[in-house]
Amino acid sequence: MQKWGIIFNVNTPPAQKAAFPGMIAGFEAIVGKTHVITDAAGMEGFLREPRDLFHGNALCVVRPGSTQEVAAVLKLCHETAIPVVPQGGNTGLVGGQIPGAGGGAIVLSLTRMRRLREIDPASNTMTVEAGMVLAAAQEEASRADRLFPLSLGAEGSCTIGGNLATNAGGINVIAYGSARDLVFGLEVVLADGRILSDLSKLKKNNTGYDLKNLFIGSEGTLGIITAAVLKLFPKPRAIETAFIGLATPRAAFALLDLARDMAGGEITSFELIPRIGLDFVLAHISNAREVLSSRHAWYVLLELRSQSKEGLADRLLAVLEAARANHIIGDAAIAASLDQRENFWKLRELIPEAQRHEGGSIKHDVSVPIADIPDFLDEVSRAVIQAIPGARLVPFGHLGDGNIHCNISQPVGAGKQAFLARWDEINAIVYKSVLVRKGSISAEHGIGQLKRDLLPQVKDKVAMELMRAIKQTLDPKGILNPGKVL
Amino acid sequence: MQKWGIIFNVNTPPAQKAAFPGMIAGFEAIVGKTHVITDAAGMEGFLREPRDLFHGNALCVVRPGSTQEVAAVLKLCHETAIPVVPQGGNTGLVGGQIPGAGGGAIVLSLTRMRRLREIDPASNTMTVEAGMVLAAAQEEASRADRLFPLSLGAEGSCTIGGNLATNAGGINVIAYGSARDLVFGLEVVLADGRILSDLSKLKKNNTGYDLKNLFIGSEGTLGIITAAVLKLFPKPRAIETAFIGLATPRAAFALLDLARDMAGGEITSFELIPRIGLDFVLAHISNAREVLSSRHAWYVLLELRSQSKEGLADRLLAVLEAARANHIIGDAAIAASLDQRENFWKLRELIPEAQRHEGGSIKHDVSVPIADIPDFLDEVSRAVIQAIPGARLVPFGHLGDGNIHCNISQPVGAGKQAFLARWDEINAIVYKSVLVRKGSISAEHGIGQLKRDLLPQVKDKVAMELMRAIKQTLDPKGILNPGKVL
Repeated sequence: MQKWGIIFNVNTPPAQKAAFPGMIAGFEAIVGKTHVITDAAGMEGFLREPRDLFHGNALCVVRPGSTQEVAAVLKLCHETAIPVVPQGGNTGLVGGQIPGAGGGAIVLSLTRMRRLREIDPASNTMTVEAGMVLAAAQEEASRADRLFPLSLGAEGSCTIGGNLATNAGGINVIAYGSARDLVFGLEVVLADGRILSDLSKLKKNNTGYDLKNLFIGSEGTLGIITAAVLKLFPKPRAIETAFIGLATPRAAFALLDLARDMAGGEITSFELIPRIGLDFVLAHISNAREVLSSRHAWYVLLELRSQSKEGLADRLLAVLEAARANHIIGDAAIAASLDQRENFWKLRELIPEAQRHEGGSIKHDVSVPIADIPDFLDEVSRAVIQAIPGARLVPFGHLGDGNIHCNISQPVGAGKQAFLARWDEINAIVYKSVLVRKGSISAEHGIGQLKRDLLPQVKDKVAMELMRAIKQTLDPKGILNPGKVL
Repeated sequence: MQKWGIIFNVNTPPAQKAAFPGMIAGFEAIVGKTHVITDAAGMEGFLREPRDLFHGNALCVVRPGSTQEVAAVLKLCHETAIPVVPQGGNTGLVGGQIPGAGGGAIVLSLTRMRRLREIDPASNTMTVEAGMVLAAAQEEASRADRLFPLSLGAEGSCTIGGNLATNAGGINVIAYGSARDLVFGLEVVLADGRILSDLSKLKKNNTGYDLKNLFIGSEGTLGIITAAVLKLFPKPRAIETAFIGLATPRAAFALLDLARDMAGGEITSFELIPRIGLDFVLAHISNAREVLSSRHAWYVLLELRSQSKEGLADRLLAVLEAARANHIIGDAAIAASLDQRENFWKLRELIPEAQRHEGGSIKHDVSVPIADIPDFLDEVSRAVIQAIPGARLVPFGHLGDGNIHCNISQPVGAGKQAFLARWDEINAIVYKSVLVRKGSISAEHGIGQLKRDLLPQVKDKVAMELMRAIKQTLDPKGILNPGKVL
């Protein structure tokens, strides 16, 4: 047992210690020897996440190849009280996919389960396994002349299972909703290994409780999603993208209101960008180019899509002309080529990457009722700068959904560690302004480990009681992703 | 106790008998004497439903005026194990809102709680109490230049609380989703009187489990919805409606596919109508007028809406021309006036009313994957006519959602009672074709009493186990709408 010294600690339940190392043999018997990883080097990639905020330990990494294998692994873990941490592409930002440092859990990696089980373009559905990478799902849909609209920064490596477990958001939520809204049916393995088989293609089905939405967004704490029936859409026949300069978030909100009224169903993205975010990208990202000749304090990236090939550019122009006539916007450009469109998007999507070159950054993924965003940004900005003079606010993101990534870069020349040491204090300032507006401290990234202790402070007491009761009902031994969410 | 002889039977729990009549005084103390109805005549309207399939008994009808009163009533019922049957506009079609015949329960009528608590057009939200009538909610939205898109036959009397408890559907689901999709936040009173207060206006909020969707569609068996934050939309600036004649459901499906590709986001209704349904309406409804000069076996009512005032008629015309060029449709008319549009809708919406004049009718509210609808209708039609020669199939409804109301009128001249006596047999024929396609036996009406015994036969075994476990967790004494759903 020498080899496993790091894994067992005082918190490891005795039953588990006794069961080990028979456990490893048990997992190998289920998934095959090559799919159980036990060496430290092999496990390392599953125990750290990209931002390196969380680093865990595990008994082993188990990589099942089928739903039946997942069920057998869960049955074994349930019998022996071994905790299970499900993991997809390991791109989550709140530590939900990383086991605790104490060890004793297994990481259940779903990435081998990446099959397209079926695509049914006529019914606009696609049945995929949890380990399929989001970009691959987008491509499968595209091959069938359909759109799967979920789209976010990590799409090249995050998986559908992770997207659903965390109810992922992204840049198209304003038109198509979050991950939750893109699912018709689910297959889920429960804590004790039972398989819930609800791979329905139905748009309407009022036969009992909505179990699907209980698992979506539960971050692997109530069951392991192994497959899903996803909603597809016709491929848009026209896309028009504008990059718009304006003076304030209030003007951006007025533009949103106008655009919704004039082009409602066609708005697929409405992203807010502060000038400083643009400056960061222009300074640090190769080939990023300035769009407008005049300088503005804020920008909006507005994208419209339509099934009609004709007329969309005219409708976008009409929105921009009305906005200019009403003194809402300063200047605007419409992308005239795919290359220009790509540049517009680069200026939005690479803000987090560019921000890394500007020293320490304290991040927030918050939402408030949409109309409250301008006041919220004013208030947070004042309070943060009062606390840390010179701190640089870079609030950007999904204004159309009320969801702003309110990231704050350190003052120029300040010490990175000294700035990051004030993480909790700055969090508290931002969350105060969020909560007074009945906003959310996690709009799209989830709770995971990062915000677990905060949750009871901000959530309705009865909601917490219900969540705990449901957790107890579905996972009475507490083996599913312990230490996350609750 | 003589007076209450009808109410108590051998099934009434002893604790409850002992508690009564102190109970009535208890309810009166909470909601006021005038809001507790105990006389048979006063209660009658709450104990029967429109189709008269279900007739129940109750201790009394309690009409609370606030969430606090609902909570106090529930607390009392929980302590004394008195069952509670929540009721809104009493328009449900599956008996969910009617107590059992054994008596012993109270009807909790929410219709006094009909306040608009807040409307926030800037954030596109509206907070209403459960007892607000759907049409009133539509009007409140309209007054603020917004659209609340839920729309269905009973909208003049059904309530928001009932709509949410049953996850109502209707004629705009293809564009805006079911009731579930139109809710940001909920206020719910739990079985023991605790109040879950989650009246969030947020579009994005990933802080823990999705409790909201557990209550929506649970038909009052997990909690009593007392208020909701509803989603609003900009009012459409253009509406175009076409009445289209075609040969088969397969052609209707091809038209849907084409229309989605050419006008996707703008389709707000796509309703299928068989010629016989049209004949029934023309025969029995005053002022209903034939639309097309040529006769067709099937019709589609297609409605598009847009935020752009310009161009929608052209886009509808382009769809119809492409469909005609591809020999998908026979003839079509576009409504040139509000009066014509109203006539188009009358031909669709009054089919159930007209059908009443044609003798007995056996009804089904089913869904299958959209692409399977043509085969499904062929198969059901053959099987029903084989079983009952001369039976007249009137399948109509929401083709765009895969949801057909597959209603069957008796043969001309046959005995009504003899026909209705074969209800279960005909159900079995229809459900067989539904289930082989993994369809739903209740697309939008719910389970209630009508389909409760059927549910375990058609639902995934693990799903049933989970539903029972959740019911046990949220309502351990089983006082919430007993005998419904589970």
